[in-house]
Amino acid sequence: MNYKMIGRLLAQTLLVEALFMIPALVVSLCGGETAAALGFALSIAIAALAGGGLWLACRKGPRALNAREGFVCVAISWIVLSLVGCLPFYLSGEIPRLIDAFFETVSGFTTTGASILSDVESLSNGAKYWRSFTHWLGGMGVLVFLLALDPGSGKGSGFTMHLLRAESPGPDVGKLVPKMRKTAAILYRIYIGLTLLDIAFLLLGKMPLLDAVCTAFGTAGTGGFGIRNDSIAGYSSYVQWVTTVFMLLFGVNFSCYYLLLPRQIRSVFRDEELRLYLGIVGCSIVLIVLNLRGYYATLGETVRQAAFQVASIITTTGFATTDFDLWPSFSKTILLALMVVGACAGSTGGGIKVARVLLLFKSLKRNIRQIMHPRAVQVVRSSQRVVDEKVLDNTHAYLAAYGFILVLSVIVISLDGFSTGTNISAVLACFNNIGPGLEAVGPSCNYSGFGVLSKLVLILDMLAGRLEIFPILVLLSPGTWKQR
Amino acid sequence: MNYKMIGRLLAQTLLVEALFMIPALVVSLCGGETAAALGFALSIAIAALAGGGLWLACRKGPRALNAREGFVCVAISWIVLSLVGCLPFYLSGEIPRLIDAFFETVSGFTTTGASILSDVESLSNGAKYWRSFTHWLGGMGVLVFLLALDPGSGKGSGFTMHLLRAESPGPDVGKLVPKMRKTAAILYRIYIGLTLLDIAFLLLGKMPLLDAVCTAFGTAGTGGFGIRNDSIAGYSSYVQWVTTVFMLLFGVNFSCYYLLLPRQIRSVFRDEELRLYLGIVGCSIVLIVLNLRGYYATLGETVRQAAFQVASIITTTGFATTDFDLWPSFSKTILLALMVVGACAGSTGGGIKVARVLLLFKSLKRNIRQIMHPRAVQVVRSSQRVVDEKVLDNTHAYLAAYGFILVLSVIVISLDGFSTGTNISAVLACFNNIGPGLEAVGPSCNYSGFGVLSKLVLILDMLAGRLEIFPILVLLSPGTWKQR
Repeated sequence: MNYKMIGRLLAQTLLVEALFMIPALVVSLCGGETAAALGFALSIAIAALAGGGLWLACRKGPRALNAREGFVCVAISWIVLSLVGCLPFYLSGEIPRLIDAFFETVSGFTTTGASILSDVESLSNGAKYWRSFTHWLGGMGVLVFLLALDPGSGKGSGFTMHLLRAESPGPDVGKLVPKMRKTAAILYRIYIGLTLLDIAFLLLGKMPLLDAVCTAFGTAGTGGFGIRNDSIAGYSSYVQWVTTVFMLLFGVNFSCYYLLLPRQIRSVFRDEELRLYLGIVGCSIVLIVLNLRGYYATLGETVRQAAFQVASIITTTGFATTDFDLWPSFSKTILLALMVVGACAGSTGGGIKVARVLLLFKSLKRNIRQIMHPRAVQVVRSSQRVVDEKVLDNTHAYLAAYGFILVLSVIVISLDGFSTGTNISAVLACFNNIGPGLEAVGPSCNYSGFGVLSKLVLILDMLAGRLEIFPILVLLSPGTWKQR
Repeated sequence: MNYKMIGRLLAQTLLVEALFMIPALVVSLCGGETAAALGFALSIAIAALAGGGLWLACRKGPRALNAREGFVCVAISWIVLSLVGCLPFYLSGEIPRLIDAFFETVSGFTTTGASILSDVESLSNGAKYWRSFTHWLGGMGVLVFLLALDPGSGKGSGFTMHLLRAESPGPDVGKLVPKMRKTAAILYRIYIGLTLLDIAFLLLGKMPLLDAVCTAFGTAGTGGFGIRNDSIAGYSSYVQWVTTVFMLLFGVNFSCYYLLLPRQIRSVFRDEELRLYLGIVGCSIVLIVLNLRGYYATLGETVRQAAFQVASIITTTGFATTDFDLWPSFSKTILLALMVVGACAGSTGGGIKVARVLLLFKSLKRNIRQIMHPRAVQVVRSSQRVVDEKVLDNTHAYLAAYGFILVLSVIVISLDGFSTGTNISAVLACFNNIGPGLEAVGPSCNYSGFGVLSKLVLILDMLAGRLEIFPILVLLSPGTWKQR
């Protein structure tokens, strides 16, 4: 295990985090929030000192990581990022229990949006800003950010590939351009551009600046932390529609946007994943609108509520404009199914991903063809290309791991005595990085009722969901730590 | 498609069914139940005429089936078996609606045990006997029974293999002896022997004859239809313990019993699936006993209730001695997880099967090893033998199909407006061939509240569960019916 290289990347992560806390400190200072400002100042000092010390200790050593070290590095850096990121909440006293502050921060970085707070509005402006910013940073990934900055990463492109693969969502991470550093930079440029566009549209709707920035962060990272107790319900329908559209945009594979730049519009719409994603969104909205007849005053409102909730759940954002736990059973079940499907690969959304669902379905169809014609050689195609068998193997392993983690997590958290619907939807909502579930963890409730053990399980679920399981499994696997 | 051969097998199925209805007719006549006796007599006539006619129409033609035809034949024969098998209930007026009679019969043959009856005790003795007998016949499979009888099946052992593979549970159907006919005959001999032993033990506990026979049928097929409204709760603790032990015995791979005959006891206990199965049963009982402290008067009663319910659910039998829907959340969640796992491959139980869970876990471990050592060639071993990659592929495809069917079924039945817990547990209980679920389909309730569409979905789930998905998928796949 190349501990020096992992140490250096951790040091960089901490230094970048310290840097990113400065705007939150400024927001606190502008609002005259002394406790919050002190919390941020202390946290910045801790992150900077720890990062600097680690850098000095590890600055020499070979510049290489193999696949295993890449996975371990990603898993550890996300845990450290969250441990340090929760300090402002804890040190300022705004979230008095450390486990709650950690839960809230992991929920932020993993873009889950599950909260233990019952009154978000009582937070300081600095804390609100930082809480939403964790979504934005977690959405695209902090190591991808480091890669985009690192001028030297062009040399050892092997290790950057391992890191990008471990941190980015989707069954098959594609390079947009031959150099990984450039790919990372392009991704971040698209991400920043779309976020700014979202903020501009929200400001046009006369949203206050802090609200617009925080809502855009939550939308861009498909996170879902709001800064009002009723999430997005209190804002105008214009703001709700803007957020609906941007949630859907951030749920699309970012390589589609890259292809749009040289106007390869036809090849974008030949993308099977994008078509299935839009198809699922459209069908779900229609079915829910039909099922909700008579629930809201006008058809327009029904369509708005259905579209917002569908976009929020399939992209795993988790904003809400209504308490969908009060909807009829059929609509709720569609939302539960969308939780599992999730957004497109290569987007900031969570869940199994539309691309994986597509691969699983095609691989199943191949299996049936093989039963009928046992001697024929069959391949799986996606968007006119043959899919590598290794990608299929990984997708199947992913599904198996998904099933095991789901069942084990539900069993452990059921010790707290909540209902079956609560337990299953809580795990689904955390594991798929959505946020609100049903019943006792529905949109009008929060996760504060769970015990410490359940919170730890849900924290692991959120991390496993965001990092697509394998980094966490590699980290916890005894074989990783055996010396060869 | 070799329609003549499929027709002949269907004809034999119908004739065997007519034959097996005769004991039920006798039971009705002995009890002086005119309506029931008339129902059976009419049904026997219909089955015999239809079977005879079909036999005459299809008696000539090549004696061969390819894999695809084997799957189609199994799927169709189970549907026809259930359509004819539900006639006695419908014609006698004991179950007035045809969809309900069909649901009850599919539930019987697939050894599910989900009932639409609120008062089982009001059924005639003949109907009670026939209802329980469907479990027994469905447990081992009617086509396996035909194979065991057919003297000519030694010749075309290709097609008998296809049939046995499509009808028998488990990821990898093993032959016990080189000839398939002999394998089928050995399986049925073990099955009959164990059933008779169960009846004997129950009679020793002073159970009435009809009760003993019906309970043994339900236990042997891991079905779960009781003939009392409180299932097994009203019988003595001796009867409950006997049933617990026999449920567990019928959940074991029957090839283990075959190995016991020449006293290969060590190789039986080297079987990883058996060890995992017993381990899961033991752990679940201990955890539930700990969780149920103070729920029942004595520790002895707690252990008996926990052991009975665990055995009933993991073997997917579905008998109950208590309303486990009233148990605390943790115990209920363990039962839900056991529903998914199911019994051993090659037993009469349903669910994903312990062997498949083991393969999925090992394949996942291999995947993690491959991440760490990308260039090494890795194989999956089970009970010291290397597992064929085709078996692994099939297991993964099975899991994917399981997921798709689960999600789609829950969405459709949620149209009836029941709670999330009810919908999920109803589909799990039918798809895994268990019977009772939680909440509105808990052990003290029944499935009569669902609409026709939901009942049809649950019927398909039960058939897909019993036949392990692929025969039903092949039957419904458009590619099957295209002429080449």
